Amino acid sequence: MSASKTDHLSRLCIHTITTKPWDIEEAAREYSRSGVAGISVWREALEGRNVRQTGQMLRDAGLTVVSCVRGGFFPAAAKNDRRAAIDDNLKLIDEAAELGAPLLVLVCGAVPGLALNESRKQIKDGIAAILPHAEACGIKLGIEPLHPMYADSRSAINTLKQANDMVAELASDHIGVVHDVYHLWWDPDLKSETLRCGEGGNLLAFHVCDWKTPTEDLLLDRGLMGEGCINIKQIRNWVESTGYNGFIEVEIFSSKYWAMDQNEFLTMIIEAYLSHV
Amino acid sequence: MSASKTDHLSRLCIHTITTKPWDIEEAAREYSRSGVAGISVWREALEGRNVRQTGQMLRDAGLTVVSCVRGGFFPAAAKNDRRAAIDDNLKLIDEAAELGAPLLVLVCGAVPGLALNESRKQIKDGIAAILPHAEACGIKLGIEPLHPMYADSRSAINTLKQANDMVAELASDHIGVVHDVYHLWWDPDLKSETLRCGEGGNLLAFHVCDWKTPTEDLLLDRGLMGEGCINIKQIRNWVESTGYNGFIEVEIFSSKYWAMDQNEFLTMIIEAYLSHV
Repeated sequence: MSASKTDHLSRLCIHTITTKPWDIEEAAREYSRSGVAGISVWREALEGRNVRQTGQMLRDAGLTVVSCVRGGFFPAAAKNDRRAAIDDNLKLIDEAAELGAPLLVLVCGAVPGLALNESRKQIKDGIAAILPHAEACGIKLGIEPLHPMYADSRSAINTLKQANDMVAELASDHIGVVHDVYHLWWDPDLKSETLRCGEGGNLLAFHVCDWKTPTEDLLLDRGLMGEGCINIKQIRNWVESTGYNGFIEVEIFSSKYWAMDQNEFLTMIIEAYLSHV
Repeated sequence: MSASKTDHLSRLCIHTITTKPWDIEEAAREYSRSGVAGISVWREALEGRNVRQTGQMLRDAGLTVVSCVRGGFFPAAAKNDRRAAIDDNLKLIDEAAELGAPLLVLVCGAVPGLALNESRKQIKDGIAAILPHAEACGIKLGIEPLHPMYADSRSAINTLKQANDMVAELASDHIGVVHDVYHLWWDPDLKSETLRCGEGGNLLAFHVCDWKTPTEDLLLDRGLMGEGCINIKQIRNWVESTGYNGFIEVEIFSSKYWAMDQNEFLTMIIEAYLSHV
């Protein structure tokens, strides 16, 4: 997954959700024209499209398809719903393969009122159930630990240590971790667990954005790199000290930025990437 | 700090901020009339009042003064500001003593852009600087770990483990931990660190409320117990398995509840306490 371009943007990847107002065709054109090297594709961006052709369209635009986002959401109170989640993830693995993405990002899931320990067990069982298909398709699965403020309904995996532990238990070269500064920056064990993750060869992706003060919305107020308090350069340094040389992915959910002209926003992303990452 | 009343509300304490629209005199009257046994006093509620007389007023109303909230906020980029924070905390210790509160709750502080490790060092130095005065005044200091979503500007101490570690380093019988389910419920180490805290005699206070799904504001959308996803009974069970028999304190910041009739809200608090704690 090392970047092929050699210029200053050769490791920059952008998630389609970051420029949500653009459809994937426009995103591909504009990323490519701006010199962005990689694209991570949100499932919603593929709706109504032939996935294989869309993957080809992205490669024809000169982009590397970095990951498919996002599977997971394994826990559920009812067994049928857990089975449905597994089926959905199996389809997503196929979709990632058709798209030509080497990685499926997993937001593991949580259900309000379901005990966290039970959710964690169901997550592990869910991943174990889809892992053989991922191996067969050559798709890696990336557990993305989410910020503890999402422990109610999005993920019961909230620290890098939990993700590293789960990867160790699942023991496959097709399972690893997605490291996102937004979710992890506060963690007192971030350095040691980042080294553990990377040195173990399990750091599959690196996501950046920033934490704004104040943060006005739990979901849709992420900051552009440099706009907040995360020491992204230091975290990148830890990540790369382990040998990681893959893409650096900008993933920003922001009502504010989605309301802007997306070409102006793309220019800002590139400037922020060059100055603050 | 064990409760003196023997009825079903004998361990219920409410923070003045929970019923923010009431001044402390009205809060004291209404808590007392409803059978609430304890009150934790926010600094703002004392503004313009004689602190000693206010403490007496609370005791005359039959209330136990459980804690004074809140000191801390030690980290700062400039040395002068750190010195000012220490001076402010020394005054707060005096205030707690005048009020007759045995405990000063510390929200330790964080500054956007100041490295978390540096903030943590400054927090420890700050507490060490005020600890002798707390000991001399017979006031305990309680480190309250705050949810990681407050790591930017409110506290760089975001897990119970961090608080326990800091208490161990400071090594005084006048320093301990304030355990709040809202901040800690998501933590995979919550059980073991709760036992460590309580069995070491360091669990000084226990705060309850609930985490709503969705949570619409990072600060002012806490839920009433039973309204969210926190398994409060289980956490209480862990807390009490260590021998803790002090007050159970309701601390809710909520624009929604502050907009209600506060007598109705107080009735709801008591019902929620009896049903869901």
